[in-house]
Amino acid sequence: MDLFLHFIDLFGTFVFALSGAIVGVRHRFDLFGVFALSSVTAIGGGCIRDICLGATPPPGLVNIEYFFCIVLAIASLSFFQKLVFSFGKPSLFFDALGLGFFAAFGANKTWLYTHSVQLSILLGCVSAVGGGCLRDVLVGKTPVIFTKEIYASAAMIGAAIELLGSANIIPERYSILLSIFVCTLIRMVSLKYNITLKTIANKYF
Amino acid sequence: MDLFLHFIDLFGTFVFALSGAIVGVRHRFDLFGVFALSSVTAIGGGCIRDICLGATPPPGLVNIEYFFCIVLAIASLSFFQKLVFSFGKPSLFFDALGLGFFAAFGANKTWLYTHSVQLSILLGCVSAVGGGCLRDVLVGKTPVIFTKEIYASAAMIGAAIELLGSANIIPERYSILLSIFVCTLIRMVSLKYNITLKTIANKYF
Amino acid sequence: MDLFLHFIDLFGTFVFALSGAIVGVRHRFDLFGVFALSSVTAIGGGCIRDICLGATPPPGLVNIEYFFCIVLAIASLSFFQKLVFSFGKPSLFFDALGLGFFAAFGANKTWLYTHSVQLSILLGCVSAVGGGCLRDVLVGKTPVIFTKEIYASAAMIGAAIELLGSANIIPERYSILLSIFVCTLIRMVSLKYNITLKTIANKYF
Repeated sequence: MDLFLHFIDLFGTFVFALSGAIVGVRHRFDLFGVFALSSVTAIGGGCIRDICLGATPPPGLVNIEYFFCIVLAIASLSFFQKLVFSFGKPSLFFDALGLGFFAAFGANKTWLYTHSVQLSILLGCVSAVGGGCLRDVLVGKTPVIFTKEIYASAAMIGAAIELLGSANIIPERYSILLSIFVCTLIRMVSLKYNITLKTIANKYF
Repeated sequence: MDLFLHFIDLFGTFVFALSGAIVGVRHRFDLFGVFALSSVTAIGGGCIRDICLGATPPPGLVNIEYFFCIVLAIASLSFFQKLVFSFGKPSLFFDALGLGFFAAFGANKTWLYTHSVQLSILLGCVSAVGGGCLRDVLVGKTPVIFTKEIYASAAMIGAAIELLGSANIIPERYSILLSIFVCTLIRMVSLKYNITLKTIANKYF
Repeated sequence: MDLFLHFIDLFGTFVFALSGAIVGVRHRFDLFGVFALSSVTAIGGGCIRDICLGATPPPGLVNIEYFFCIVLAIASLSFFQKLVFSFGKPSLFFDALGLGFFAAFGANKTWLYTHSVQLSILLGCVSAVGGGCLRDVLVGKTPVIFTKEIYASAAMIGAAIELLGSANIIPERYSILLSIFVCTLIRMVSLKYNITLKTIANKYF
């Protein structure tokens, strides 16, 4: 199962890197810019988490496998653009899978460092969505996760489920799978039926 | 007096959270977006300070009282919008009070960690204004404190006064009250008489 | 030679601070805003590096010499605007020199902390270009280094050369000079002949 989780980790990193690279190419960044934006999107969330935990240097910056995922994502985009774009629908699923994994992994790591439920849910969510936020800020946009779709909320629920395992309420090896499954499910169902979070009415401003 | 300071702390957090939530609602963020922006505004400055000091995980992220202040701010905005907006003038005073408290608290904490005068003034100021800067950057604006009004400067002066206590020049329990008082006063007077900092002429560019 | 490197360090800080101050004045920031943007540009990259390394508090924030460099840059801009702008061409050279120094210094420090080649090149580059990125984000722009010119890439190459010394392949006192020399050379040559990095074609989006 460890191998399976490792695979999801790398696959999620690849998909996140790809999403960053696509935004970079759209903004006509040069190769370095695409590489930087791709890296930030893929490993930025984990870095924020690790810095908040004092787990320095952030392992995501040192891990050479992540580096290869990012290079692979950029290479795919350079040489197989048509193929990448024919993957529109499936890539949403892979993205949801990565979201679930990063939320579960982030919550688990934060629990091991702090044993704080609140912080574990918070940093689990940050691990999963922080990279995308940084990507949006770097291209001068308000983070999309603030305005629409169930995305960060799904990550929060995933992180909370993972904690059931960390707190020994259910066996830990089930909690991580359940966490990834539920987070991915919520994300995909909300996409399919176009479910969004309420906004607060603004009559007075 | 500790109870009094604790009350100002929570009250300042509430007012800062409210200011973040209002910006979020204005930008039509969904509930998660409003929560995220509100949290960043309320506790972002303290988090930057704690990360710079290596005081991880930042206590502001773990403190459940702050979480309740944020939830309360969002609830107020959802259910009592009219009331919130009738508080225009008073809320400027509460904001100035929060500014003074955060500057004094940030300077005090930094002094305890580093005994550096320069860093204490700097991070005292960052504690007080950092959250608002992050809020502005996240909605794609240049931080307002860079362009107008005496705000960050008031925080710097407050932080400097607090250090008189930390360095035992005046008793510490007076220094924090004096710091909050002077910072709030400077802010309110500059608002009332519309005093601003000089800008540098730009004849050549 | 230590004196020579120390001089480049302060000179690089001054030039970076000046570039931040100029952007601030252009955006009509008040004195505090210009000071804040100038500081972030001059020492932001080093702070990100130190936070990633857990080297807190970041020495750049405590070093009073840097503070004087920043104040000097702002004073120059206030009182000698004409002179500053007559330095257009030379300032590009000083900027390239600062870039080389910060990349070499950042790589060296990261190596001492982590002995990771990948991280040293990465954080060497971040030390050199991170401040400029923060500056651009704070005024709501996409970092210029993402879109044009050989800048960050030159820093990466400089950082890599410095590592030859850290790993004892060549004597360390040569590696830092070679690193600064090559980085500055690449930057100046790419400016002179208008060499840029390839962008990835975007036929499909």
